[in-house]
Amino acid sequence: MAGNSFGKIFKLTTFGESHGPAIGGIIDGCPAGLKLNLDAIQEELNRRKPGQSSIVTQRKEPDTVEFYSGIFEGQTTGTPIGFVIHNANQKSKDYSHIKDAYRPSHADYTYDEKYGVRDYRGGGRSSARETASRVVAGAIAKQMLENIKITAYVDSVGKISLEKPHYEVDFSLIETNPVRCPDKAKAEEMEAYIKQIRSEGDTVGGTVRCVISNVPKGLGEPVFDKLHAELGKAMLSINAVKGFEYGSGFEGTQMKGSEHNDLFNEDGSTKSNLSGGIQGGISNGMDIYFNVAFKPVATIMQNQETIDKEGKLVEMQGKGRHDPCVVPRAVPIVEAMAALTIADFLLQNKSSKL
Amino acid sequence: MAGNSFGKIFKLTTFGESHGPAIGGIIDGCPAGLKLNLDAIQEELNRRKPGQSSIVTQRKEPDTVEFYSGIFEGQTTGTPIGFVIHNANQKSKDYSHIKDAYRPSHADYTYDEKYGVRDYRGGGRSSARETASRVVAGAIAKQMLENIKITAYVDSVGKISLEKPHYEVDFSLIETNPVRCPDKAKAEEMEAYIKQIRSEGDTVGGTVRCVISNVPKGLGEPVFDKLHAELGKAMLSINAVKGFEYGSGFEGTQMKGSEHNDLFNEDGSTKSNLSGGIQGGISNGMDIYFNVAFKPVATIMQNQETIDKEGKLVEMQGKGRHDPCVVPRAVPIVEAMAALTIADFLLQNKSSKL
Amino acid sequence: MAGNSFGKIFKLTTFGESHGPAIGGIIDGCPAGLKLNLDAIQEELNRRKPGQSSIVTQRKEPDTVEFYSGIFEGQTTGTPIGFVIHNANQKSKDYSHIKDAYRPSHADYTYDEKYGVRDYRGGGRSSARETASRVVAGAIAKQMLENIKITAYVDSVGKISLEKPHYEVDFSLIETNPVRCPDKAKAEEMEAYIKQIRSEGDTVGGTVRCVISNVPKGLGEPVFDKLHAELGKAMLSINAVKGFEYGSGFEGTQMKGSEHNDLFNEDGSTKSNLSGGIQGGISNGMDIYFNVAFKPVATIMQNQETIDKEGKLVEMQGKGRHDPCVVPRAVPIVEAMAALTIADFLLQNKSSKL
Amino acid sequence: MAGNSFGKIFKLTTFGESHGPAIGGIIDGCPAGLKLNLDAIQEELNRRKPGQSSIVTQRKEPDTVEFYSGIFEGQTTGTPIGFVIHNANQKSKDYSHIKDAYRPSHADYTYDEKYGVRDYRGGGRSSARETASRVVAGAIAKQMLENIKITAYVDSVGKISLEKPHYEVDFSLIETNPVRCPDKAKAEEMEAYIKQIRSEGDTVGGTVRCVISNVPKGLGEPVFDKLHAELGKAMLSINAVKGFEYGSGFEGTQMKGSEHNDLFNEDGSTKSNLSGGIQGGISNGMDIYFNVAFKPVATIMQNQETIDKEGKLVEMQGKGRHDPCVVPRAVPIVEAMAALTIADFLLQNKSSKL
Repeated sequence: MAGNSFGKIFKLTTFGESHGPAIGGIIDGCPAGLKLNLDAIQEELNRRKPGQSSIVTQRKEPDTVEFYSGIFEGQTTGTPIGFVIHNANQKSKDYSHIKDAYRPSHADYTYDEKYGVRDYRGGGRSSARETASRVVAGAIAKQMLENIKITAYVDSVGKISLEKPHYEVDFSLIETNPVRCPDKAKAEEMEAYIKQIRSEGDTVGGTVRCVISNVPKGLGEPVFDKLHAELGKAMLSINAVKGFEYGSGFEGTQMKGSEHNDLFNEDGSTKSNLSGGIQGGISNGMDIYFNVAFKPVATIMQNQETIDKEGKLVEMQGKGRHDPCVVPRAVPIVEAMAALTIADFLLQNKSSKL
Repeated sequence: MAGNSFGKIFKLTTFGESHGPAIGGIIDGCPAGLKLNLDAIQEELNRRKPGQSSIVTQRKEPDTVEFYSGIFEGQTTGTPIGFVIHNANQKSKDYSHIKDAYRPSHADYTYDEKYGVRDYRGGGRSSARETASRVVAGAIAKQMLENIKITAYVDSVGKISLEKPHYEVDFSLIETNPVRCPDKAKAEEMEAYIKQIRSEGDTVGGTVRCVISNVPKGLGEPVFDKLHAELGKAMLSINAVKGFEYGSGFEGTQMKGSEHNDLFNEDGSTKSNLSGGIQGGISNGMDIYFNVAFKPVATIMQNQETIDKEGKLVEMQGKGRHDPCVVPRAVPIVEAMAALTIADFLLQNKSSKL
Repeated sequence: MAGNSFGKIFKLTTFGESHGPAIGGIIDGCPAGLKLNLDAIQEELNRRKPGQSSIVTQRKEPDTVEFYSGIFEGQTTGTPIGFVIHNANQKSKDYSHIKDAYRPSHADYTYDEKYGVRDYRGGGRSSARETASRVVAGAIAKQMLENIKITAYVDSVGKISLEKPHYEVDFSLIETNPVRCPDKAKAEEMEAYIKQIRSEGDTVGGTVRCVISNVPKGLGEPVFDKLHAELGKAMLSINAVKGFEYGSGFEGTQMKGSEHNDLFNEDGSTKSNLSGGIQGGISNGMDIYFNVAFKPVATIMQNQETIDKEGKLVEMQGKGRHDPCVVPRAVPIVEAMAALTIADFLLQNKSSKL
Repeated sequence: MAGNSFGKIFKLTTFGESHGPAIGGIIDGCPAGLKLNLDAIQEELNRRKPGQSSIVTQRKEPDTVEFYSGIFEGQTTGTPIGFVIHNANQKSKDYSHIKDAYRPSHADYTYDEKYGVRDYRGGGRSSARETASRVVAGAIAKQMLENIKITAYVDSVGKISLEKPHYEVDFSLIETNPVRCPDKAKAEEMEAYIKQIRSEGDTVGGTVRCVISNVPKGLGEPVFDKLHAELGKAMLSINAVKGFEYGSGFEGTQMKGSEHNDLFNEDGSTKSNLSGGIQGGISNGMDIYFNVAFKPVATIMQNQETIDKEGKLVEMQGKGRHDPCVVPRAVPIVEAMAALTIADFLLQNKSSKL
């Protein structure tokens, strides 16, 4: 109920506040017999880590994951995988200014309204730090998915857009630049823009595109738990996300049916793929692709007027070390949530027929 | 697991194929003591009904809902509300041509891949007929919500767009035209376009905007079950939906934080509302608003090449009576899914504090 | 939440009051491709039906099940199976005396306390009539289980007990007498006792034993969802049940470990089976067996003092047509709940290993 | 699915093997604003701890719980409570003999059959060590329950039984002896018997009775999630439990309805309480009481014949430090599971009426 679990069979539950002793989670339902590459899990965490490049937050967190259970002699045992990431760098003093005041467009005000109490240090539970636990679980899901390939990249930063369909993109370029945009020129333009924005004490939004290839046919459950509905929920649950579209998306609404329909080849594949690999909520074996919209980070290094708990107007300026643009670090998070969604549907699908 | 339920406390489970004897559902978790206006439920169904205007499908279905349980002497008893809508107009012969062939961009192929069997008559379970059951449940949820007002309307058809923010719209105009667009001139333009498209044997997409007012603060569960994540899933679960965005949405990704942040008034309301009434996944009391993208209907009255079960290419032409544009009839469905989502979060929120 | 669903993958949700227009349910998650014998389902219902013999209630209900969805050309399609049993014989006048008074040891008082409202006709939702829907779903589960054999029988009525372990019982005798006790002499003794009790206007309790054979090894989920814990919950959810024990049960508490341990044969079977076919919550392939305790029916044909809604003492005498002893009709219900539990674990177990 | 969670709103998920680095869990859904007494939580753990008296296992585990999240300035925040108990005393060498052989009446064989792999050290996940996490969560639930009092005690050890109804018992005597039996003479008899059994290298079973007082009326959900059905499942999920009965239980099956019915007093309380405080699955405000049957511990210090992974017969003798009788340490576990069940139903009940 309380919203800290994701998945039905392959199920992740996370805990932890940004400035408590630790964050972590339990993965329940990972099948037994999966040989785990623990280094690969840590590498995914490193892709999300603060301080990894000049255009992300300069906070330093080692973000080392420790596993407490569910893995024995290098493989999963079918029992719950408990894991913990200790919070090393809890500069709580950075946040004393928000103890009694609400940061605009943050969750401070709504948490107080909902719970009557809030761990104000660094956003507490509403901090994107929680997503580190998702990346751990997503990395395990990825290993379970084997040949299913999940790739995300930055498609736009502010108004600078890649302007290329995903099938014309060279995925090998994604990790060659700090923006994670698979185009050298665009990446440089985006990077320069992010640095400029940061120098203004401001922030900017962007979009991430994700492509999932080699998906078996038949994944997804009809009606309410359509594959794209769960993918959408997964993405919208990531901090700062404002929108989700798959296949032809919002642009597709302007098309005619005769243009939009994906005609079949004789092998069941389709000539076009405006459906985005999903028909009637179920995968058809074509590439699944979707876009995720991230708003500009709410913490800016400029003076803003806001209110305190008593409703009095006060001045506030962002402190701490924050990202000027969230999309480069969001890439592994999008991949993790996609992996968790697909892994769960793979297991669910085992019961679809006798 | 099998995807036919929605909600955690206020929970709807639906059953039924488009051409079986009946569709229906069970609403479990509706609190006791709710006085129901049964006529108002039927009126919502009538808003979704085929044959209601010249621009929607001319199928005739009385779509009369019968309640079997959970209501006694005009009010809910806290026990499950079972209801049934008998299928009156099952022109099964219209669908014999799709018994062995897969309609492009429909769910025929994926259902066969998933289940190894499929009720081919009229799309079976994948037909949008299932949404009638959602409208029944949504109408009950609406009555539970009392002062919370949920209003949807058509914001665009093809490239014709309302081009007005929702707070400049006169909601009283929505039901004055068959398109359900709250602007006389735009509605006429859209209607004419839909008729032209239909005369070409083609279809077109569009978008629906939904606004939820008077929402209590504190609804939504953090992390995975954010209010907008569940709303997104609810909308993406509707047939033909390709995208969801709330608040500033995809456009917001191009803004700076200094432009995007919603500054507080002293009463806790905000001067702007780019957050769309939700911060950190929890309602802040401002209007919630979002857009839902619908693709063009896949069934067109033109010849298309497709394949049969053996993978042989065959010619196919749409038969039966179908909507040239789905958005006018989608309006009550969007409202229903929004009502179900909000009702469920209202009940969930009862446990947020002691 | 509201308690009207059973199962996680193979999931039954029921609706309906004893004197409303109909009861029924939705089975969601039954795999596609199961060829159904509809007559066999109706036969299970007939085993539970009122009026089937001289020692059960003489109410007449045809109890004919109608299927509305999920079955096409004789087999399941993987979509939800909606079904309805119309209530034919709603002698509501029989129950007018309980509109304002609470029957002792019934659910009248607690429903009013919980919901503030209650459908007083015949117990409404708390009536055992609801179990007809369970029998329908259980009959489908049985067909899915194929070689797994589920057999229940009456083990005791009042103080008259079969006094034989299940492996010395001839199951073919169960349906040869109205008590469903697989021993001619004991069955006659029980039948005579039930008739005597009825002539006194009284009722009596009893126990049902259930045996499940040919269970695959590995069913059940460790820790909270142990196989016997879910079986126990399933049985305790049946009206009038007061206790559950499996394997050595309560008697086993008096044994020493050296007597109680089940030593292995070389093929993994065990020499004794005090474990009742379940170790650590997981089936080991031996027979699962358990006892279910049913209290005497609360409705007696004698004067009782009770209270009305205002808390005033009033006289009340049972009316209507009720069972003097519930266990003969409980046999198919116990089997149905066992079948639902095993079917669900079979599907759950598909994800236990890669 | 995988069975490591308990509860629907107040939800505990546990992880951890007996000889891994740590066990622990996440409590999701504990309402915000609960002031926690952390010492009281540790005291409950101490009641369950090994080595606490001469008649329990002499293993030494500090069993100190650390909280990682969800608690801020002494009170719950509504976010998940993550906690960990490090395993201090992992004498893995004690268990090397069971690496390749299956202990009779343990879960070794069934885990291998289910998962194809097993952490053989000390029973791994199937060890009762897991219940320490339940005691932590139960202690928090107890604090949420305030005036609702949950008391368990040992009612029998082998054939030595207390032979007193719970309402004649002086609860203040429970913790005055190591058996936790609230009767000096019986407790001494039981203690002597347990010591004798241990000297024989053997073990013995017993029963625990639990009483819940001051329960609000209206708890429990009808049909499948009856209050006693969930209590039964909760108890049956505890290691070594073979049976559950509430109210009149198995003995009640031998009574007549005229003897068994609980007649009302004018205030809605009942003159007798054979219903055990629950009618139709819903609490009526009277004391809830039930019995839980524990089998003798399977690990005995005698030679037993068993099989290894290849199915070859081998000799085995129990090693390590084990309980000769589990019921004294089971008392706080029974209370914890009862507290979790009641807390969850309290929160569920918030949605029963408008």
